[in-house]
Amino acid sequence: MVTNHQVLFNKVTSTGLPKPGETTKPGSQEIDVDNVPLNGGVLTRNIAVSLDPTMRNRLKGDIGYFSPPYVEGKPISAIGVAEVYRSDVPDFQPGDVVSVWSLGIEEWTLHPKEAVQGFRKFTEEQLDLGLTITTWLGAAGMPGMTAWMSLKEIIGDMKAGNKMFVSGAAGPVGQMVIQLAHEAGVKVIASAGSDEKCEFVKSLGADEVINYKTEDVLAKLKSFAGDTGVHYYYDNVGGKQLEAYLTVAATYGIIVGCGYISGYHGDVYSPNNLFNIVTRQVKYIGFIVSSFLPKWLGPFLEEVPQMLASGKIQNKEDVRFGVLSAEQAFVDLFTGNNSGKVAVLIDTERADRWNLKQK
Amino acid sequence: MVTNHQVLFNKVTSTGLPKPGETTKPGSQEIDVDNVPLNGGVLTRNIAVSLDPTMRNRLKGDIGYFSPPYVEGKPISAIGVAEVYRSDVPDFQPGDVVSVWSLGIEEWTLHPKEAVQGFRKFTEEQLDLGLTITTWLGAAGMPGMTAWMSLKEIIGDMKAGNKMFVSGAAGPVGQMVIQLAHEAGVKVIASAGSDEKCEFVKSLGADEVINYKTEDVLAKLKSFAGDTGVHYYYDNVGGKQLEAYLTVAATYGIIVGCGYISGYHGDVYSPNNLFNIVTRQVKYIGFIVSSFLPKWLGPFLEEVPQMLASGKIQNKEDVRFGVLSAEQAFVDLFTGNNSGKVAVLIDTERADRWNLKQK
Repeated sequence: MVTNHQVLFNKVTSTGLPKPGETTKPGSQEIDVDNVPLNGGVLTRNIAVSLDPTMRNRLKGDIGYFSPPYVEGKPISAIGVAEVYRSDVPDFQPGDVVSVWSLGIEEWTLHPKEAVQGFRKFTEEQLDLGLTITTWLGAAGMPGMTAWMSLKEIIGDMKAGNKMFVSGAAGPVGQMVIQLAHEAGVKVIASAGSDEKCEFVKSLGADEVINYKTEDVLAKLKSFAGDTGVHYYYDNVGGKQLEAYLTVAATYGIIVGCGYISGYHGDVYSPNNLFNIVTRQVKYIGFIVSSFLPKWLGPFLEEVPQMLASGKIQNKEDVRFGVLSAEQAFVDLFTGNNSGKVAVLIDTERADRWNLKQK
Repeated sequence: MVTNHQVLFNKVTSTGLPKPGETTKPGSQEIDVDNVPLNGGVLTRNIAVSLDPTMRNRLKGDIGYFSPPYVEGKPISAIGVAEVYRSDVPDFQPGDVVSVWSLGIEEWTLHPKEAVQGFRKFTEEQLDLGLTITTWLGAAGMPGMTAWMSLKEIIGDMKAGNKMFVSGAAGPVGQMVIQLAHEAGVKVIASAGSDEKCEFVKSLGADEVINYKTEDVLAKLKSFAGDTGVHYYYDNVGGKQLEAYLTVAATYGIIVGCGYISGYHGDVYSPNNLFNIVTRQVKYIGFIVSSFLPKWLGPFLEEVPQMLASGKIQNKEDVRFGVLSAEQAFVDLFTGNNSGKVAVLIDTERADRWNLKQK
């Protein structure tokens, strides 16, 4: 018997920050990992999970969100990486490392047969690239896919010399967007919530930066826009920064609607200048990565992990150690008390194998 | 010498309804139509003008709108139809009837040479179709083009069985959208501001109607949406109706952003659920017809006037007689005190020739 430590969903939290001990609480169960019946499913020993802003919306009960709400008393779930320990499914054998679309934040998970559809097995080649395992949850995982696929799908070929505004720029999606835009010759202005983060996004290739907590976003955008306006807006936050963009949007401007972090805690700010969408013929297009995996996953996996391994693209991550650290890490994600993509290494015993070191 | 009666712009009016006598005022000038020097331009005897909601934004001074603000003391201008009286431009000869992109609301206009770029000469065939001259300002003019071209450009092939919401449905753009959508087998719910207008849009093919002044728009939309959601929204008004649509939008819903009438008087309502654009992967795309004339004007003129002449498409219009009636007609456009596309016949003396009768 082993003790399976878990982070459980405790109580619906509609507004404000999630609170450790109230929104979530630690839990545990005893599990006989060598004998528990699998009933056609798979038992995994969990390696790491990603913490993403989108999870905030699953703490609100049934609000009609595209991902289902968390269930009280059960582990909250996230995108993760796990190792198959035992399996009733021929495609997955003990020792296989898999990416899991919905993994409980716990040390062991017994996946029913149907859940195995959400598994993707890593190839030897992929694991041999030497990336930290959590990179597969960041730049080589869902956030990286979101950035890469949404730019391909919504903007297509970015035009060198055009201008882009990226909000939430220090987050894992923003990081990737900046690097890809910069690579394409696009001039980038990027906003983030601290001077340190601004320095970081500058190091990734942002031409100008805005600390949205201390600086006047609109004034800086106006100066950046000059006579041309700003052609693209990669929007992770919505609200006031979306309003500011609409003030400087170029004719035929394109907004990639990737997130709306500013509204996730219930205090929604609504831009008062949507009319500019009409008058400037702006395209504002929402994007959910899962819709585009069938189309773009193959090309993404061909290209991006290799770019990361060669250092052509950087991935800054903030990896916390131990399953229970997820509670505080999830709060830090929203207060800005993180530096880079937030992930949790659950399998701390084998940190070396996953190319990670505790700081 | 003749007296050229005019409607002059008098004073910037940023909020509220335009006021005859304050926002605009009647004026006149003496003009020697047979001898005034043309300096390379064209003198027209004006036939009719269109009154469109977009003109409201030109009363606000320089707000960065895509059409320039009106100039105090000069006639307000609109899209119109005129007859060439004298010309220094070889392409336009006395007697030619022309569509004019920007025509002063006055009986005679002296167009400088450069302004003649905005002229389009009617062919004999077009004039022989027997449409009222003001139809060329409505269903066969800018509003009809807006409806027809925006559907082609933004939605493309409408899918039979899909659902569409049309706001501002009794207006000239809405009328055309309903008929085209109905023709394509799309189920249409349409909103307008009176029971009479609702009956009218039903007669055009709307399956369901909403009197937005007396009925619960969201409740009716929810019932119409059922399990499928609403696939298309043709938005003429923005604000609360846009918010209501975002509540019932289908995944991959498409919003044609054609207007934002609800905000034109300065009292802007901002939808609080823009996040749904992201989560439902909605496309919200602004449209200005002038951008698409080079691409679509030819096909439009091939198809639509003929459909109107044959009765396949209807055009309901509310034509006021006499240049000075424009002042009150412009107010009626916003209070809903109109029935159909609002236009002003300036050349009342020759009403018969323009296929119009005063009611």
